[in-house]
Amino acid sequence: MTQYISFRRPDGTKSFGRIDGDSIDDLGTPGVASFLKDALGGDLAALVPTGRFARSAVRLLPVVPNPGKILCIGLNYATHVAETGRDQKEYPAVFTRWADTLVADGEPLLRPVESTRFDYEGELAVVIGKGGRRIARANAMAHVAGYSVFNDASVRDWQRHNIQFTPGKNFPATGAFGPALVTPDAVADLSSQRVTTTLNGQVVQDQPISDLIWDIPFLIEYCSTFTELHPGDVIATGTPGGVGDKRNPPLYMKAGDRIEVSIGSIGTLSNPVNDEI
Amino acid sequence: MTQYISFRRPDGTKSFGRIDGDSIDDLGTPGVASFLKDALGGDLAALVPTGRFARSAVRLLPVVPNPGKILCIGLNYATHVAETGRDQKEYPAVFTRWADTLVADGEPLLRPVESTRFDYEGELAVVIGKGGRRIARANAMAHVAGYSVFNDASVRDWQRHNIQFTPGKNFPATGAFGPALVTPDAVADLSSQRVTTTLNGQVVQDQPISDLIWDIPFLIEYCSTFTELHPGDVIATGTPGGVGDKRNPPLYMKAGDRIEVSIGSIGTLSNPVNDEI
Repeated sequence: MTQYISFRRPDGTKSFGRIDGDSIDDLGTPGVASFLKDALGGDLAALVPTGRFARSAVRLLPVVPNPGKILCIGLNYATHVAETGRDQKEYPAVFTRWADTLVADGEPLLRPVESTRFDYEGELAVVIGKGGRRIARANAMAHVAGYSVFNDASVRDWQRHNIQFTPGKNFPATGAFGPALVTPDAVADLSSQRVTTTLNGQVVQDQPISDLIWDIPFLIEYCSTFTELHPGDVIATGTPGGVGDKRNPPLYMKAGDRIEVSIGSIGTLSNPVNDEI
Repeated sequence: MTQYISFRRPDGTKSFGRIDGDSIDDLGTPGVASFLKDALGGDLAALVPTGRFARSAVRLLPVVPNPGKILCIGLNYATHVAETGRDQKEYPAVFTRWADTLVADGEPLLRPVESTRFDYEGELAVVIGKGGRRIARANAMAHVAGYSVFNDASVRDWQRHNIQFTPGKNFPATGAFGPALVTPDAVADLSSQRVTTTLNGQVVQDQPISDLIWDIPFLIEYCSTFTELHPGDVIATGTPGGVGDKRNPPLYMKAGDRIEVSIGSIGTLSNPVNDEI
């Protein structure tokens, strides 16, 4: 199982590396900022370490801190389509985030002062390796660098101010992404993995990835039809049923909470929740 | 009237400059790529030319070729809200484009092979100068570097594949942006200017900017509440009624067409339409 992370070195510069037990093999250029995105189009396994740190000596960054495109898939589990009361369509919903919404595993998700309706959405994230346009379904998996875990945290009232989700999905520090990129060869049985979200230890979402309405090859084919994909781009594949906004009574995240999203062999993304100051 | 453009120098490098009659005063660093975005947070008027070219010797780029954020406002003219059959809401719709959708004045807008429903949307574009978060309405105009013209060309069937517009608004070469950035001091009477779109010389949209449901200060306040704005970010303020898709019979753009959007003293954005090869 090979896992890659983005991190800050003890000297504060940004880099990326490979997890080796309790150590991190630094794969960046010593002393300067280096980005995983710039290596994702090539052969990660061939990269030679330039340094080594104890895991406890580095600070995690979002897996890809600076993706050019973050494509979020909406309404991709029947349970979530049903709870929203929406119709099942022939194609998925696609909305976007900017990279400045991302936080790493362990960093706080921030509830903005403008809302108390701050909700979780546990998701499988697909990170693009080799880019391309009009990638055929049959070739799509060759464009996947790996998988990670995403929490597409949503400011529900701002999401529904009008018919487009942008405002509710782009407040700073609302997209948790990590902890690591897990290469596809390390995930033999992806479809049987479950997306499990817990809020303060209580399970609130739990569904197998095999329940995705549109699978990963389809999503890559579809998205690359209308936009060119590049190394480091992210497709957040959608959230299962169980979101807090559709519960009775609603269940929103608040300061002091701990929200965790686990996907079997891909990892656990754990974030405290704070109020934005 | 001061106008700034982004362009390719005769040697192929990218730069930006100030229009001076039939000449362009180059404001970039000689011999290397320079971007208007990097100057927009400062005092454009204070920049000293580093070179000078005949207007005919340079090739226009989109006004800002590489905005970090392009925020497109939907449903911001009552005539367009009415023709879509949608309800008027308390807040505007906000969707996004990526910068790789942009083309300059004079460059072809491309109809993708996947659709014949390629439609125009003439709009006023606001370019952010000084960035910020939670910019108050009263201070908003101090964050405007200037205005330009936008054609938010839309692939209507892909826009309506599901409830989010992203796929229909992000095909490459579907967002025309230019020709120039016009500084606010040169536009004394913005609200009385009209957005006029012509397709092959026939007027298809024509409405005063005073008809905007949400005005520019509101849009800056609203957008900067959920996302930080940076120099060079673009707010495309929405399109008037008259889009081709809502006509009977529908009127779509096709190869060989010429689509033009004019806004009084801000300029005319003129683009041929081609099929994507």
